[in-house]
Amino acid sequence: MILGFDPTLILDLNLAGTFVFGLSGGLAGVRARLDLLGVIVLAFVVALAGGIIRDLMIGIPPATFRDGRYLAVAAVAGIVSFTARPVLDRVDRALTFFDAIGLGLFCVTGASAALAHHLGAVQSIILGAITGVGGGVVRDLLLRQIPNILRTDLYAVPALLGATVLVVTHQAGGRSALFPLLAAGACIAVRLIGVRYGIKLPIAPSERKAEPPPG
Amino acid sequence: MILGFDPTLILDLNLAGTFVFGLSGGLAGVRARLDLLGVIVLAFVVALAGGIIRDLMIGIPPATFRDGRYLAVAAVAGIVSFTARPVLDRVDRALTFFDAIGLGLFCVTGASAALAHHLGAVQSIILGAITGVGGGVVRDLLLRQIPNILRTDLYAVPALLGATVLVVTHQAGGRSALFPLLAAGACIAVRLIGVRYGIKLPIAPSERKAEPPPG
Amino acid sequence: MILGFDPTLILDLNLAGTFVFGLSGGLAGVRARLDLLGVIVLAFVVALAGGIIRDLMIGIPPATFRDGRYLAVAAVAGIVSFTARPVLDRVDRALTFFDAIGLGLFCVTGASAALAHHLGAVQSIILGAITGVGGGVVRDLLLRQIPNILRTDLYAVPALLGATVLVVTHQAGGRSALFPLLAAGACIAVRLIGVRYGIKLPIAPSERKAEPPPG
Repeated sequence: MILGFDPTLILDLNLAGTFVFGLSGGLAGVRARLDLLGVIVLAFVVALAGGIIRDLMIGIPPATFRDGRYLAVAAVAGIVSFTARPVLDRVDRALTFFDAIGLGLFCVTGASAALAHHLGAVQSIILGAITGVGGGVVRDLLLRQIPNILRTDLYAVPALLGATVLVVTHQAGGRSALFPLLAAGACIAVRLIGVRYGIKLPIAPSERKAEPPPG
Repeated sequence: MILGFDPTLILDLNLAGTFVFGLSGGLAGVRARLDLLGVIVLAFVVALAGGIIRDLMIGIPPATFRDGRYLAVAAVAGIVSFTARPVLDRVDRALTFFDAIGLGLFCVTGASAALAHHLGAVQSIILGAITGVGGGVVRDLLLRQIPNILRTDLYAVPALLGATVLVVTHQAGGRSALFPLLAAGACIAVRLIGVRYGIKLPIAPSERKAEPPPG
Repeated sequence: MILGFDPTLILDLNLAGTFVFGLSGGLAGVRARLDLLGVIVLAFVVALAGGIIRDLMIGIPPATFRDGRYLAVAAVAGIVSFTARPVLDRVDRALTFFDAIGLGLFCVTGASAALAHHLGAVQSIILGAITGVGGGVVRDLLLRQIPNILRTDLYAVPALLGATVLVVTHQAGGRSALFPLLAAGACIAVRLIGVRYGIKLPIAPSERKAEPPPG
């Protein structure tokens, strides 16, 4: 039980996050010209990595391998990505979009799970953010790209924000289903606004006049 | 106890898998011109990663660090790779060969361990495949190559096949030592046939006419 | 309790290691022109990865997320790296220097933790070395560099040496605070001497006349 939050809501958010991260992973795989199984594998990895990392950090067996629903949802996302990329691409920047939604959902469920296992507020915020960014980091590592989270656009900021909203409202006694949804929405909104307007965090003062490194 | 399969057989298969994956990792290290210790480290990592990931996913402490036999076998494999590459190369494509055998052995022992810990059939098949491919994925990540598993030749398919044979025969009540060997053999055969004849899975329809991406 | 070693000393060494690895990660992030949060994230990851891997291998929940001191120290290290790179650079090769100190401290605390959890001597040495090198390996993976540990300079050797000194003196009954410090010092000294004089381990005999691979 997620300490006062409706467990069905948290499960639904988790399954929805699994699906959109599965799409994000699957589409990245299709673009990288992976074969059918490679696409499904990447959908699985991206969809499940955040939750697996979360459970390992909490110190419990990863729920994913006990609960077949996550596996089924991730597999469907992979197959949809493989067959439906032209449709998905009509939603321009589909990958960025699904990735943002997964980020928002998982930072909320990750922070909730940490609170439910009696981790402190700061730890729960960080673990929420890790749950959110974990799938994307693993995707980028496997495809040999510098992870999104280390680039200068807003990626970890919205994840931390969403987890913070969740934890603060929870600590303040809020138990309404509105708070997890609000927290996820805040994360998704900031992420998408950041992408849309190219908002960047500053790099270190010492590096600002330097040449960008080659590559 | 591995639910009806002879535990000594499973241990033997695990140690054999550790050795051949150790050779696969060690040879990859020699080719990448790593030093002696780098070769041994890579042999260790590739030999042990699959089993470690399996145990973490099941939610038990990795057996590798409790049981010195795995460490010893992986170390020997690393030293053999370092000193004996010219001999090993007479077996053409030695790396591919050892990798295939490790894949077959570990998908079987991984699925067996999952069954023994009461995971469901689908979960055991997936975990068996993960155990099989884990070492190779980590090897490729460390050497900065796109993991085998994401390329278009058959790599995850044989691992899933071997694990499926193991799980299906087990669920059907088979307890003979023949079934794990049959399952490993099926995986190894399909992997090697796939490599020999260049069998590939299809990429997504939307990408088939596109230019391959640069690099 | 770390079996006879002063637990306060071990905690202090762990926090010191967390700080210097945090600096090492943060500086690497500044150099790679990451933004403020990217630098802090990299400081976190490098500072905490070794201990997290250690605890997962032992089979206990990672202590880092229970104990806010580690998080605070890692965050401070990240912020210091971001703002103070010009100062830190006066200490030439600051990154290499801090990395060496972290290596020494963590191989000692990692081996101590393994002994405290009743792992064997060989296992404790290997786990100590893994704890030491873990942060740097993850840093290099995220920044897409071949990990230090696989290059031909001395990196795993000093980590194994430090862990060996700790385990051997412990097995011989030594409980003085001197031994962990001695072990860490041996590791740091060998690492820095190796870097200073360019000492390398040999590559495999079969590769010595070959062309280095492109890239």
